[in-house]
Amino acid sequence: MKAETIWQNLEKVRKKAPLVHNITNYVVMNSTANALLAIGASPVMAHAIEEVSDMTKLAQALVINIGTLSEKWIEAMNIAMKAAKEKGIPIIFDPVGAGATNYRTKTSLEIIHNFQPEIIRGNASEIRALINSDAKTKGVDSIHNSDFALTSAQEMAEKNDCVVVVSGEVDIITNYQRTLYVKNGHHWLPKITGSGCTSTALVAAFCAVNSNFLQAAANAMSVMGVSGEIAAKISQGPASLQMNLIDTFFDLTKAKIQEYLR
Amino acid sequence: MKAETIWQNLEKVRKKAPLVHNITNYVVMNSTANALLAIGASPVMAHAIEEVSDMTKLAQALVINIGTLSEKWIEAMNIAMKAAKEKGIPIIFDPVGAGATNYRTKTSLEIIHNFQPEIIRGNASEIRALINSDAKTKGVDSIHNSDFALTSAQEMAEKNDCVVVVSGEVDIITNYQRTLYVKNGHHWLPKITGSGCTSTALVAAFCAVNSNFLQAAANAMSVMGVSGEIAAKISQGPASLQMNLIDTFFDLTKAKIQEYLR
Amino acid sequence: MKAETIWQNLEKVRKKAPLVHNITNYVVMNSTANALLAIGASPVMAHAIEEVSDMTKLAQALVINIGTLSEKWIEAMNIAMKAAKEKGIPIIFDPVGAGATNYRTKTSLEIIHNFQPEIIRGNASEIRALINSDAKTKGVDSIHNSDFALTSAQEMAEKNDCVVVVSGEVDIITNYQRTLYVKNGHHWLPKITGSGCTSTALVAAFCAVNSNFLQAAANAMSVMGVSGEIAAKISQGPASLQMNLIDTFFDLTKAKIQEYLR
Repeated sequence: MKAETIWQNLEKVRKKAPLVHNITNYVVMNSTANALLAIGASPVMAHAIEEVSDMTKLAQALVINIGTLSEKWIEAMNIAMKAAKEKGIPIIFDPVGAGATNYRTKTSLEIIHNFQPEIIRGNASEIRALINSDAKTKGVDSIHNSDFALTSAQEMAEKNDCVVVVSGEVDIITNYQRTLYVKNGHHWLPKITGSGCTSTALVAAFCAVNSNFLQAAANAMSVMGVSGEIAAKISQGPASLQMNLIDTFFDLTKAKIQEYLR
Repeated sequence: MKAETIWQNLEKVRKKAPLVHNITNYVVMNSTANALLAIGASPVMAHAIEEVSDMTKLAQALVINIGTLSEKWIEAMNIAMKAAKEKGIPIIFDPVGAGATNYRTKTSLEIIHNFQPEIIRGNASEIRALINSDAKTKGVDSIHNSDFALTSAQEMAEKNDCVVVVSGEVDIITNYQRTLYVKNGHHWLPKITGSGCTSTALVAAFCAVNSNFLQAAANAMSVMGVSGEIAAKISQGPASLQMNLIDTFFDLTKAKIQEYLR
Repeated sequence: MKAETIWQNLEKVRKKAPLVHNITNYVVMNSTANALLAIGASPVMAHAIEEVSDMTKLAQALVINIGTLSEKWIEAMNIAMKAAKEKGIPIIFDPVGAGATNYRTKTSLEIIHNFQPEIIRGNASEIRALINSDAKTKGVDSIHNSDFALTSAQEMAEKNDCVVVVSGEVDIITNYQRTLYVKNGHHWLPKITGSGCTSTALVAAFCAVNSNFLQAAANAMSVMGVSGEIAAKISQGPASLQMNLIDTFFDLTKAKIQEYLR
């Protein structure tokens, strides 16, 4: 990862203020919107079947996040994804909790099959649960194995011809042919609810203005990791970290990225 | 605007702790409730068609905000507005995103036509989109034109016989016959998601205890602007501003209003 | 209350990281999830009828909170509570606003009658509203009467054979036979929206790893009260208190509990 590349993508987000349409979960709507505003994007949340298509057609990226899914919302997601495909804007899919219940796994697989999201971001076990290969599905312990995360990400990327982002101590960003790694981050970040959803939203903002989705996703994850480290220095716990993280997005400079990027 | 008038209205909110019933969007529910509590009001959120009427009848003001609208919620809004009219409490309407999709514009127009809200609060382009005159609808650029905001606000107020609040660098509060201006505020406020919705909620709290809705709305917008400036002095970005804003609502004094009011 | 007992329960939460399934209101989902993460538990929110049963069966405790209820959600709550009973995990019920509308009172009574939650947590007037005895129902003023709170809690506990937690200046935790009191807390806590819901969530986390529900609930309320006092010392109002409260949950030590417990 190069600071210059990350910085250029961030500057473009700030300059173009892309509209990011989020159909996401109730838990994180507020923090997702604040993160997008702070990074320079323009967030909108809309889920009514009467308007999702219109809203998606105004947007430069579409986030689909199944954190608190239900039938009506899946219906809206499908309409929005159809509109995104027609308009040619990227779909960023976050399969929250895939593998935890059949409903989430099944819904995720249908979304991937029917709409081929350009980017999928999850953790290792979510991604693993979506690779339809029982033989290779491992237990919970193997989540902490970084080989497992890499193999899962690459397999998913190859199978679905998309960019896959697996968050973890080291973030993996791959389109199968090429794999990037982001080593920044802080161990308190997973203690903030929806920090993964925030990463997904940042990826959407960066992809909205950069058609090299592999690089854009890696740039966004770098901004998340670097900002997390900067914010942690002045935080007392996860709640102050969440506040300081948003503030850091807001005034992140090229110099700071250069200083912190690993 | 006079500090004394603002202060008296604020004191009355704190003393009477009016119940403000909010049918609002998922994104801002938490921050809206916290803002209302901090200012001294008593917030309640309820949207089930089985209970909205009962809840509205306990309240002293009703907020209708279409930020994440859907059919079921519109149905509930209609029942609640009917109850508000029967009880004679003010309806404060926030047409979030009117003009962005037909669904929002249409729903907003129906709400205004069917229930004549006492106060409508939005930004210039939302208000403009609701004035049914294609000839006068201007492009996005004209939003930054303050004449445009004033004309739109006055036209809307005259047409619907209500108080219209247009947020902007200078807030405009008008009932057509008379127009008030609030010059306080901070340029980071629009970077907090739902800061407009917070303004709407404050307007509701102030109107709940002051039947001069024009003055009450201006008082509320002044408290928002003054508090935003006070909070910004000790903030590092939009997230700390949001926190400090709520804390400022909580202990705002007459002296502080006098010091900061422009 | 003994610091040692509270501490052991807290350590067990941190060690086991129990999954707490929350079917709760939109207003507090974010703050509830952050509180559970900070205390060491693992929160999940899910409400689709297609998956609630599966999710509850993965969990160690189920929170049912009617803060923004509607028909679909009640249906999901019923399925989840049935699953909780089958698995034998505790149901922690928060009857938000019972007594305010018939819908909430009726729904609460049905939940209690049909599923017998192991723990019910509310304020004095909510609990009072659920005791089906018109003769004893008092006006709003009597809420401040501590005898009233105690009588209501004990009556409810006896009638439903459960643990009842009544939050107030002094928290009352009773299973009728035995009553515990928590005297810690801070008068700003009720100024944070959903601070009661946070208490409910903590009670769930503590009960998830401690089958003595009376003691576990009292331990959780002590952690809430002690943390509130610690956090208030470095806070300027309710918003900074909310942030500092979560941070305090995150690094609460045995020494701090010993120092602050009354």
